[in-house]
Amino acid sequence: MQYSIKKIVENPLIVTTDVVPSIPGFRVDGVFNCGVTRYGSEIILLCRVAESVISDDPDVYKIPIMASDNGNSRFGVTNIRRSEHPEYNYDDSRVLTKDDGNGLKKVVSLTSLSHFRVARSIDGVKFELGTRPAILPDPETECWGMEDPRITKIENTYYINYTAVSPNGAATALIKTMDFISYERLGLIFLPENKDVCIFPKKIGGKYYAFNRPVPNAFGTPDIWISESEDLLHWGMHRHFYGVSDNGWENGRVGGGAVPFLTEKGWIAIYHAADTNNRYCLGAFLLSENNPDILIAKTKKPLVEPGEIYETQGFFPQVVFTGGCLYENGLVKVYYGAADDKICRVDIPIEHIYRSLGV
Amino acid sequence: MQYSIKKIVENPLIVTTDVVPSIPGFRVDGVFNCGVTRYGSEIILLCRVAESVISDDPDVYKIPIMASDNGNSRFGVTNIRRSEHPEYNYDDSRVLTKDDGNGLKKVVSLTSLSHFRVARSIDGVKFELGTRPAILPDPETECWGMEDPRITKIENTYYINYTAVSPNGAATALIKTMDFISYERLGLIFLPENKDVCIFPKKIGGKYYAFNRPVPNAFGTPDIWISESEDLLHWGMHRHFYGVSDNGWENGRVGGGAVPFLTEKGWIAIYHAADTNNRYCLGAFLLSENNPDILIAKTKKPLVEPGEIYETQGFFPQVVFTGGCLYENGLVKVYYGAADDKICRVDIPIEHIYRSLGV
Repeated sequence: MQYSIKKIVENPLIVTTDVVPSIPGFRVDGVFNCGVTRYGSEIILLCRVAESVISDDPDVYKIPIMASDNGNSRFGVTNIRRSEHPEYNYDDSRVLTKDDGNGLKKVVSLTSLSHFRVARSIDGVKFELGTRPAILPDPETECWGMEDPRITKIENTYYINYTAVSPNGAATALIKTMDFISYERLGLIFLPENKDVCIFPKKIGGKYYAFNRPVPNAFGTPDIWISESEDLLHWGMHRHFYGVSDNGWENGRVGGGAVPFLTEKGWIAIYHAADTNNRYCLGAFLLSENNPDILIAKTKKPLVEPGEIYETQGFFPQVVFTGGCLYENGLVKVYYGAADDKICRVDIPIEHIYRSLGV
Repeated sequence: MQYSIKKIVENPLIVTTDVVPSIPGFRVDGVFNCGVTRYGSEIILLCRVAESVISDDPDVYKIPIMASDNGNSRFGVTNIRRSEHPEYNYDDSRVLTKDDGNGLKKVVSLTSLSHFRVARSIDGVKFELGTRPAILPDPETECWGMEDPRITKIENTYYINYTAVSPNGAATALIKTMDFISYERLGLIFLPENKDVCIFPKKIGGKYYAFNRPVPNAFGTPDIWISESEDLLHWGMHRHFYGVSDNGWENGRVGGGAVPFLTEKGWIAIYHAADTNNRYCLGAFLLSENNPDILIAKTKKPLVEPGEIYETQGFFPQVVFTGGCLYENGLVKVYYGAADDKICRVDIPIEHIYRSLGV
């Protein structure tokens, strides 16, 4: 029996060159953080695809946005002339910023726009990625994109929560689907700033539970909270669950990762943690089966950390970030975004997780 | 008929010297932002009382906290020796900060601790303030205090929402009471950072509504959002409602103020807005009776602004801030915190509000 984790040899499974740009002139920056579910005989990944805009004029910085044409979503482009905006900082690969006058960097815009595509596989290794977007951002509430989906299957419905990004902040929205063909929007379930929501896949003591990760502005750190709901749409009874610690690998931020799954020992939740240098690792929580806000054990050291070249080189290096896994036959297959531009898989025997948790 | 606003001549109605400190050694810094309701023949104000700790040793900076004694809340004191902590900044009257190494001020602690006291009046002018706290902060989730209550009466129950402050951020909690003698805690209803929640006093189209004011960290501004609930405990369907504008008096932050009340023209909500210099004024929204997220009109200029000496001098000058009003016989009696240390009242004929709204 195999007890150690294995980043599979076929990694990376999906890369930017596998992605057909949404419209001519777009450049694919990444296909990465994905939600995961089994759908009949298929394994489905709902992939975040991030695109920016090719510019032939070095003075023109082009930013992709989601716009509205008579109520229909369409991709659009904002042109910014560098010569007219010397006050902007163009150096960060992820955001365009300007100084707010108090020495703080204020985000003017994201540099890329993300939407979701479906990738399908029978063996969980070879994936066929859709050539067109599966879901486009809403031009009002998500004009800066949709990011980092998680899929929670409850009975025969697949609930997709994700980060809905607009100039009003990064909030969390919910969509449901029965078939990954048609999708129904259910509104925002967490106010900005709140990301990395993981909804547990069944009611526990009559309530749904979700991890979420608010980021307060005045004080407080990017910590994991747990909340309750009766209908998945309205959430309350919020409690602080687990915060950044002095552990080097999780002293920057922590957040929910894969949708939790139930084992003989309780709920296992694979989460992410970053240090103050933005190096992202994965850890695991063990939670009480009947009270998921009771933390029985956690991994003291990273369960998975960046090391392979596909993790240390990319759009944003030194990142492993998961939105979902499959727990089947004693093996946890974790699909994860590597360096914010590729999709990879790491296989972790459940016994290895137990040992890492000391249980 | 009187059409202009009147700050009543009896102002200020309640001041710090009216407050008996909670324990010996405490100093009352302010009695201010209050919730308001009519309770039988009485008018009740639920007042925020902020206290700090007297220190006889200039080297010792004392900070009040709420601690736990075998599960019971009790006031406590943390002593900080300035000589041992030269890295702290002691200049801000509201917070103790330190430099985070990146030029940002990180909040180490608040300087004062707030709890609630009940003040009762028959005429709405002369108030009798309780000599003891009515509600003490929870030592875990509110160890840095309870702030800025609002009271929403629904049938025979009074729901009190307020800012629950802890090192994890400023969240919003809910308490209910039937009698302002015993209180039942209902948990956190909005995650940090979220303040200035105003719950509408009845279901509209089968849903409760509430304004709230999240403050995202990465980007986005301190804006007013509106959310829905079926049970007052779980909230969702969050929508952005009204943001900071280029108007000079509301270019810093906006937030809900008094609990909205229904008029012949729709819901009136008196809100607060501050400019980038932290000068706080009050404005008004007119909302559709059946769809409170539809903004019919708003005041272009401040409805109430600081000007009287009791508003321009105090713990934090240039502030008028309301948590509640009474709308009776065509007159809106707005109770408000002045300069973050006193309670005052301004009377506004509803006709004046209509004219200010242009309706």
